[in-house]
Amino acid sequence: MGIFGRKKRVFLDYASMTPVDPGVLEVIKKYSNSEFANPSALYDEALKAKEVLKDARERIAVVLNCQKDEIIFTSGGTEGNNLSILGIFESYKTLNFTPHFITTVIEHSSILETMKEIERRGGEVTYIPVPAEGIVNPKDVHLAIKKNTVLVTIMYANNEIGTINDIKGIGKKVRDYRTKNYTHLPYFHTDACQAPLYLSTDVLRLGVDLLTLDGIKMYGPRGAGILYVKHGINLMPIIFGGGQERNLRSGTENVPNAAGLALALEIADSMKEKEGVRLTELRDYAIEMILRNFPQASLNGSQTERLPNNVNICFPNLDAEFAVINLDVNGLASSYSSSCMNLKEDSSSYVVGNLGKENCRNSSLRFSLGRETRKEDIDFLVTQLKKL
Amino acid sequence: MGIFGRKKRVFLDYASMTPVDPGVLEVIKKYSNSEFANPSALYDEALKAKEVLKDARERIAVVLNCQKDEIIFTSGGTEGNNLSILGIFESYKTLNFTPHFITTVIEHSSILETMKEIERRGGEVTYIPVPAEGIVNPKDVHLAIKKNTVLVTIMYANNEIGTINDIKGIGKKVRDYRTKNYTHLPYFHTDACQAPLYLSTDVLRLGVDLLTLDGIKMYGPRGAGILYVKHGINLMPIIFGGGQERNLRSGTENVPNAAGLALALEIADSMKEKEGVRLTELRDYAIEMILRNFPQASLNGSQTERLPNNVNICFPNLDAEFAVINLDVNGLASSYSSSCMNLKEDSSSYVVGNLGKENCRNSSLRFSLGRETRKEDIDFLVTQLKKL
Repeated sequence: MGIFGRKKRVFLDYASMTPVDPGVLEVIKKYSNSEFANPSALYDEALKAKEVLKDARERIAVVLNCQKDEIIFTSGGTEGNNLSILGIFESYKTLNFTPHFITTVIEHSSILETMKEIERRGGEVTYIPVPAEGIVNPKDVHLAIKKNTVLVTIMYANNEIGTINDIKGIGKKVRDYRTKNYTHLPYFHTDACQAPLYLSTDVLRLGVDLLTLDGIKMYGPRGAGILYVKHGINLMPIIFGGGQERNLRSGTENVPNAAGLALALEIADSMKEKEGVRLTELRDYAIEMILRNFPQASLNGSQTERLPNNVNICFPNLDAEFAVINLDVNGLASSYSSSCMNLKEDSSSYVVGNLGKENCRNSSLRFSLGRETRKEDIDFLVTQLKKL
Repeated sequence: MGIFGRKKRVFLDYASMTPVDPGVLEVIKKYSNSEFANPSALYDEALKAKEVLKDARERIAVVLNCQKDEIIFTSGGTEGNNLSILGIFESYKTLNFTPHFITTVIEHSSILETMKEIERRGGEVTYIPVPAEGIVNPKDVHLAIKKNTVLVTIMYANNEIGTINDIKGIGKKVRDYRTKNYTHLPYFHTDACQAPLYLSTDVLRLGVDLLTLDGIKMYGPRGAGILYVKHGINLMPIIFGGGQERNLRSGTENVPNAAGLALALEIADSMKEKEGVRLTELRDYAIEMILRNFPQASLNGSQTERLPNNVNICFPNLDAEFAVINLDVNGLASSYSSSCMNLKEDSSSYVVGNLGKENCRNSSLRFSLGRETRKEDIDFLVTQLKKL
């Protein structure tokens, strides 16, 4: 039985989207109907909604190890990434100053497309290349920092290949630069959307100034995200209006989603260690079984510095799109790259392509595991792959 | 029994936020957990999600009388208004062209604050004054159009005083200008967030090019909005990434909210006539009873061109904030202006102030009725007002 209650259906695309945790769904329901008021109003129901919002912010701040007013609620990871980049650009650009940004060539589309917009608006962007292991070298980041660099944004874990960057190490390099040059710039942002189920999101320990999370990647609410913004950072909003969220994100607060995010993050945090161990075992079993059965196949990205739930394999000469459709017919949901590139007309992966594995660009498959994944699902996967 | 299931609790702030319709909540639940996939993926579950999204778009298009690909899903009314204004500004501004915008002094904060941003970015804005009746004169709009006007944005119904603008008449003036001057500019946008429960949202009949709706104002999902964008309009996105929503709104599509919006809008449409008649009677009864008991009080804005659910009264020398808190203690939820002005530190209403009723700015109360409002609630209101 797969997650959809039908026979012989195995879902291995949790990196694309997780279902909403049943407890989170209950919370959303509670604050959507019987306790629904606008937290900005003055009466009893509204004050209660405000209290729920405050409580959610506080609980999230505990998990992230930050202050509650450093938590900004957004509509999702894409918006959080946009607000970080565009917000800092608009805050620093002047006639005499061209803000410079540093990122990598394997970031999520919500970072890369926003960087294109920065260039359109007259900003400057450096895209750091990434070696075959899929992990950014902190030294490369340090070398790229210039006098006009306002933001370094490096993803915590890659959405396609699951490789984990040394955020702490990069954060240290950025702080070293700032200390040595008596400046508060550049800021350091990380897109942590793939991280909260398996990795620490302690912003102090990581040494980040901004951090993006997304409800849909952590069994949380849809259309809901968290942006951590450290005290003292000048951000211009990208959406203007009633001045909610410390004027950084206008629009009536989404109380059910805020409460749902808090619970989802707490659940993720409490399951992190155990689920990490369980899935790492399953992941390595999957990699081993696949590489044993397909001697020409290879793992994309580091095996050790890798999310416990990510298996991304290059099968030389395979047509990845054809394979995903074929596996689907046989009862298995997988992915050939990210599902977040709606505009792309081909099935190639720029992430894999940018690792120097040009021949793997169109022939890599991603299997991402989740809370419902069991060993028999991996066995089913290997059986179906053999049928291809 | 009020909406919160407690005794002697009357909720009269539906203009600020409506509860989620129970049927809508069921739909949200369905597509959040057991049928949750990312519609941009390729497998069966994803194709089903894509189908749900397509179906939602089609059903909304039926109510709005437009094409399904003219429907853009957003995170709410504030975002829809921002995208319309900033999207057109960024699309038209060049070194040699300063885009000009026309709006009114009584728009929602998500319009007025975005206009401030337009001015900051070098654009030009004309704010049309509004007479005491609270209704914009279409001639004034026509007179304000200049060669560089790119957008006219006039709200359909005012969120504070409930007055209804002649959108059809304004649309005609805009089209007249365009025809006479052989130009496709300016476009005409209306913030229709307060409208869909009581007024026609037929975009062809109204003659609008862009129209904003918000789930929280129509018993729909939170963090969910609709922006109608007529074919052929050049909009730059304000959020960049995977290119969802015809590249106008990146971010993983919120399938549960899209389906919820479609149902909420269909329910609103089917109840519109009957509920309009019922609430108009209740509204006029409330106005009559209040003015009879408080001879010095006066209605803010037109009584005839007014939303069926809006009662906004000026009580000379009353401290509105004190009154709202006092009514709350006695079991009644009301509002002294909009609940959407989080940054304001005083309780004054710029809407009422801008109608030329300077002395009513701090002494007006808004009571907005909804699906659960009955005659005894109005009687309760009048009793409580007399106690003040």
